Amino acid sequence: MATSSEIGLAAAINILTAFAFLVAFAILRIQPFNDRVYFPKWYLKGLRNNPLQSGAFVQKFVNLDFRSYLRFLNWMPAALRMPEPELIDHAGLDSVVYLRIYLTGLKIFVPIACLAFTVMVPVNWTNRTLEESKLTFSDIDKLSISNIPKGSNRFFTHLVMAYAFTFWTCYILKREYEIVAKMRLHFIASEQRRPDQFTVLVRNVPPDPDETVNELVEHFFLVNHPDQYLSHQVVYNANILSKLVNEKKTKRNWLDYYQLKYDRSNKSKRPLMKTGYLGLFGKSVDAIDFYQSEIEKLLKEISKEREKIITSSKYVMPAAFVSFKSRWGAAVCAQTEQSRNPTVWLTEWAPEPRDVYWDNLAIPFVSLTVRRLIIAVAFFFLTFFFMIPIAFVQSLANIDGIVKAAPFMRGIMEVEFVKSFIQGVMPGIALKIFLIFLPSILMMMSKFEGFTSISALERRSASRYYIFQFINVFLGSIITGTAFQQLNTFIHQPANTIPVTIGASIPMKATFFITYIMVDGWAGVAGEILRLKPLIFYHLKNFFLVKTEKDREEAMNPGSLSFNTGEPQIQLYFLLGLVYAVVTPILLPFIVVFFGLAYVVYRHQIINVYNQQYESAGSFWPDVHGRIITALIVSQLLLMGLLSTKEAAQSTPLLIALPVLTIWFHRFCKGRYEPAFIRFPLQEAMIKDTLERAREPCLNVKAYLENAYVHPVFYNEDRWDGSDDGISDEESQKEPPLVATKRPSRTNTPARSQRSESTRTLLSVTDERSCP
Amino acid sequence: MATSSEIGLAAAINILTAFAFLVAFAILRIQPFNDRVYFPKWYLKGLRNNPLQSGAFVQKFVNLDFRSYLRFLNWMPAALRMPEPELIDHAGLDSVVYLRIYLTGLKIFVPIACLAFTVMVPVNWTNRTLEESKLTFSDIDKLSISNIPKGSNRFFTHLVMAYAFTFWTCYILKREYEIVAKMRLHFIASEQRRPDQFTVLVRNVPPDPDETVNELVEHFFLVNHPDQYLSHQVVYNANILSKLVNEKKTKRNWLDYYQLKYDRSNKSKRPLMKTGYLGLFGKSVDAIDFYQSEIEKLLKEISKEREKIITSSKYVMPAAFVSFKSRWGAAVCAQTEQSRNPTVWLTEWAPEPRDVYWDNLAIPFVSLTVRRLIIAVAFFFLTFFFMIPIAFVQSLANIDGIVKAAPFMRGIMEVEFVKSFIQGVMPGIALKIFLIFLPSILMMMSKFEGFTSISALERRSASRYYIFQFINVFLGSIITGTAFQQLNTFIHQPANTIPVTIGASIPMKATFFITYIMVDGWAGVAGEILRLKPLIFYHLKNFFLVKTEKDREEAMNPGSLSFNTGEPQIQLYFLLGLVYAVVTPILLPFIVVFFGLAYVVYRHQIINVYNQQYESAGSFWPDVHGRIITALIVSQLLLMGLLSTKEAAQSTPLLIALPVLTIWFHRFCKGRYEPAFIRFPLQEAMIKDTLERAREPCLNVKAYLENAYVHPVFYNEDRWDGSDDGISDEESQKEPPLVATKRPSRTNTPARSQRSESTRTLLSVTDERSCP
Repeated sequence: MATSSEIGLAAAINILTAFAFLVAFAILRIQPFNDRVYFPKWYLKGLRNNPLQSGAFVQKFVNLDFRSYLRFLNWMPAALRMPEPELIDHAGLDSVVYLRIYLTGLKIFVPIACLAFTVMVPVNWTNRTLEESKLTFSDIDKLSISNIPKGSNRFFTHLVMAYAFTFWTCYILKREYEIVAKMRLHFIASEQRRPDQFTVLVRNVPPDPDETVNELVEHFFLVNHPDQYLSHQVVYNANILSKLVNEKKTKRNWLDYYQLKYDRSNKSKRPLMKTGYLGLFGKSVDAIDFYQSEIEKLLKEISKEREKIITSSKYVMPAAFVSFKSRWGAAVCAQTEQSRNPTVWLTEWAPEPRDVYWDNLAIPFVSLTVRRLIIAVAFFFLTFFFMIPIAFVQSLANIDGIVKAAPFMRGIMEVEFVKSFIQGVMPGIALKIFLIFLPSILMMMSKFEGFTSISALERRSASRYYIFQFINVFLGSIITGTAFQQLNTFIHQPANTIPVTIGASIPMKATFFITYIMVDGWAGVAGEILRLKPLIFYHLKNFFLVKTEKDREEAMNPGSLSFNTGEPQIQLYFLLGLVYAVVTPILLPFIVVFFGLAYVVYRHQIINVYNQQYESAGSFWPDVHGRIITALIVSQLLLMGLLSTKEAAQSTPLLIALPVLTIWFHRFCKGRYEPAFIRFPLQEAMIKDTLERAREPCLNVKAYLENAYVHPVFYNEDRWDGSDDGISDEESQKEPPLVATKRPSRTNTPARSQRSESTRTLLSVTDERSCP
Repeated sequence: MATSSEIGLAAAINILTAFAFLVAFAILRIQPFNDRVYFPKWYLKGLRNNPLQSGAFVQKFVNLDFRSYLRFLNWMPAALRMPEPELIDHAGLDSVVYLRIYLTGLKIFVPIACLAFTVMVPVNWTNRTLEESKLTFSDIDKLSISNIPKGSNRFFTHLVMAYAFTFWTCYILKREYEIVAKMRLHFIASEQRRPDQFTVLVRNVPPDPDETVNELVEHFFLVNHPDQYLSHQVVYNANILSKLVNEKKTKRNWLDYYQLKYDRSNKSKRPLMKTGYLGLFGKSVDAIDFYQSEIEKLLKEISKEREKIITSSKYVMPAAFVSFKSRWGAAVCAQTEQSRNPTVWLTEWAPEPRDVYWDNLAIPFVSLTVRRLIIAVAFFFLTFFFMIPIAFVQSLANIDGIVKAAPFMRGIMEVEFVKSFIQGVMPGIALKIFLIFLPSILMMMSKFEGFTSISALERRSASRYYIFQFINVFLGSIITGTAFQQLNTFIHQPANTIPVTIGASIPMKATFFITYIMVDGWAGVAGEILRLKPLIFYHLKNFFLVKTEKDREEAMNPGSLSFNTGEPQIQLYFLLGLVYAVVTPILLPFIVVFFGLAYVVYRHQIINVYNQQYESAGSFWPDVHGRIITALIVSQLLLMGLLSTKEAAQSTPLLIALPVLTIWFHRFCKGRYEPAFIRFPLQEAMIKDTLERAREPCLNVKAYLENAYVHPVFYNEDRWDGSDDGISDEESQKEPPLVATKRPSRTNTPARSQRSESTRTLLSVTDERSCP
């Protein structure tokens, strides 16, 4: 175990690193030529067009105003200054709610840290257990529960503290849940009109021999929601088109690149290129001509593919975005069961148009359940057996293996430096590469599972990542060994000794986790604000590729908060904080500093940098809440285990009430607040509808919604080729005809088709009457 | 362990007992004076007024047609003859679905038994393990898995069989789920109009300083469901009134009794009674006069209480039954979230009027969650520690204890017979009494938990009873010891040895369970058909009390299927069958006989006897399905444990796939079929509405629904006193006035109140227009 001076040294190093990052950031950000790296958000919002300073030519690139260097930390108060409502306006609710996670961390851990230091540190410190034992120990251990003699009555302090911490955490969690739920409802109810408020995603439209999907959807909703149905947009399978468009974009980039090269060389020499693999083989051709012809070819293919999509019914997926006349109608449809067969006509709130994950819209119900099973099994193996392929790669990546596989490398291999590099670094690299790719692997799993919105994908990936981290980082660090070895041990251990095994080794790992917090938390967060990678990429692109303002905008790459990797990382700190709060309170200040620093840094980034790709109105909060509750219960169970090794067994019955109460608290919160995140109250919808009707009696909702849910490939395509959005425009001009229900025989309802017709007529009359 | 001849003897005894019951039943049922005991259902339906035979006076009481005695088993084919649709008409869907549980048992276990006997019995029999060992064993053990030597390859037969049985069970379960779901939807969609189709129960109406609950409900639904809201019925707290009415009924009974006595004595002597405790103390009065005055007093109180209920707002509970113009409107309201605060304005399908549990309608949300916690903890203690109070009672109920408490009993206590009776029987009786009261205790727990319908109460009690039986009967018999001792053992055992411990002792308990099935199953079911208790009570009542036809009807006491005790009992047989299918297949025929016998008996009872109190349209099937799945998983885990003691460890990985697949199957079924049991598809509602509108365009839904959800105390009361239903009539005559929304300021919607008014006007116009 590290002594306190070692910890102090590590702290000093990490503080210095973090400080160096911050200073570097402070200097770089005020250089005008970095302005687009550190303030892309403002450029994207159109509020900033060029660096604020103006003056001499040099000043366009380097900041010569030395006074500004003195105020190098003034971004911090600036980041904190923007009030929350304005921030919601500026960056969306998701970002603000994400920040609240850090804020929740501060609210939970600052009072806990204070209480722990005033009460528990003296209780722990004033013992001589460690000094009397012959173990080596450090000052940090003297502050921890290890310093209390076995069977001491002082453990009641820890017991009381465990209760206090639990109640405080629950109190804060409840308050935060309440606030976030209110913010969400307010945000949804706020004045902005959004297409997803009126729209429902319908999946698994059953196949019908007589009607196309388009007709079927229209008839179904005309019949079953006669007063509310407005229009719909079927989903096209545009995956091929999307591929073609992407290809065209790449080729276009190359064309630009060669064009620029040609222009820079003062049109002296047409650039040449090879047509083969990676431009290394094949015959040389004029690059500009080549790409121009390629692009033209692609354009033809694209328009052909488009034609096919519009005309052929094979490209229509059994899913549709159905829009309603009012938010009330959409809320009703999204929350109700439509058909007798619960696996068809599945309705759910349409995600925001930006948030839709188009590829998954057509997966049938049975396939979904099978996919879920496959992924559950795959994730189990990934979590517990991921070390096996890595160990295999590691065993391959040794000197002998490489030499055997590639004898010509022998010469290089015998150089001492290369040898030691491969032996020392390669095994670590295999693991590191895996860990870097892990979020992507988890994301792929979620995609395979069939979620229809990016936000849902990210939420699912986040919970998987959390489980992985819990098992492999948290438990893996406490009980050294691979996850599978742990699993094996746990299966062969009595249920009550598992918390004991883990609990007993917790105090010993405190110093390790303190170092972890400093390296991963402090330095990591400080590194985040520096944006080293985007900085380098931006300047490279700017130098080589950027031609127009639009190119420069693309080169900025503002990035976004990635919930699927960021949130599980934060949750690890919640877990560490709650587990160590009673055991080794010295860890708490490190957690508090992490949360404080991260809050300021991410607030700054959200204001100035990140550009969120979608807006889910904070729908991830129940997950965040649930994971903090999990951490709380884990901490309680481990404390029970730890105390039972300390011969304070009389405390067990008292401690057992804690998880029971916590689980109950969780269920209470679930019932009380979760519906706000998954359902949409009719009252709200009605108020909003009524208000809107009063303010804009002539609003044409239909026109507003028309193109909202067109596949992005139909409008995201750049307009260089001059072609218009084929489908969306045609669709928009085509008023859906009043199709008579063709099959009265099926349902034996002579009254129905008549009714739906008359309703439509009546409704159109109403519309006309109210808005001449 | 019992030998096969012992089992044979037990079987013979039980078969004889069952047969004796059946013969007794066959003889008693054809006696005209028992007709109302064995065919009450037909009397209640008004299809039978007196015994079928007619003739001499004696023949009114005793059946002298001796040929009918020869056909004493002809009730069996008669019971099976009624086709299912007719049975649904006759007894309701609940009863038919309940019968399907037995049918499912037959469908699962008949093929399994056949397969087990053709494949596994030879495999088990042709070993000499038991003969070579020095253990005592019976022929039954030779047929079981115990006869296979350790590490034998023959275990692969059992493995394959486990797969076959699992797949067969799942196949049947899926088919049954499908059929029941279809039956339910068909039943709901069938022609009968029922008030609950149009009605939604609203709970937790928030308190409002300005408006009464009545006004508030009306305004809320007028605003939020403007096109669909029809009317509502607030819930009165009629608990006091209900108590008074019951009291009056009891007194009335006594009055009848004395009146009858007086009449029988030829009006010679007015009967006397004492007014004190139990009629034993106090002064003597004329009984008829006394009760007449008492009843009059009560009548006054009742009418006063009624007055209070109608006038005082304190008696109005924050709950209401809200009716809609169409099924579609009700389906929408029941399935959606109404208010921003998810703990108020909770809507759910109104249970059938008969099914409402009135006392629980006013429990607020927070109280509900607290109650749930309390009951969860209480149930845990009940399950694991119920032996403690019983042991305490048992320790009191010994000779010394009684003598100490009541010295005057010493004389009696010293009689040898009394002494041995107390010592031998009392401890057993304490346990038996507890077990008899257990369902009532569980029911009280469910009531305390706050469910609003009797069917939900019964479902919850059933699942608790199942858990209790699983732990205390199934596990308790396999591992002898109290539940708490088991729990203690399990906590201190490794997780993987728990199935091993249980699994290893399973084969040894086969004979015990065979006896259990015969005693509890065979004889129990045969006893059920005899209806000994109702028979005796009926004749007693008939002799002493019955005066009018209505009294006789009340004396019949047809009883009903009690789901909360019956279903868990059946589930125990499913569990035994599935667990022993692979281990000791000889148990299967006993199970099959039980299911067959029970099916016939209960079908007969449902046709002729039981009178269901409510109709939930088979909404308990997901529970039934879930518990059979649980039994399947338990059987798989125990087989894994058992095989691992047989040194057939290579089978474990193959077996582990089974529970995973079974759980996945359960999730699949849950998604595929469960919504049919908890939600009501809009398509169905719309079809039904449209049909109805076409057939009965002038139907006055409002009049139809008016008194549907009035507290039963207002109309169940007998009309002896000549008073009418105070409230319901007044309510019915009082057209709910068109209340203007008083508080436009609150919501800032000048348009709203105007809108709701105009809507109402418009709607009434529509109503008038369509049906002049």
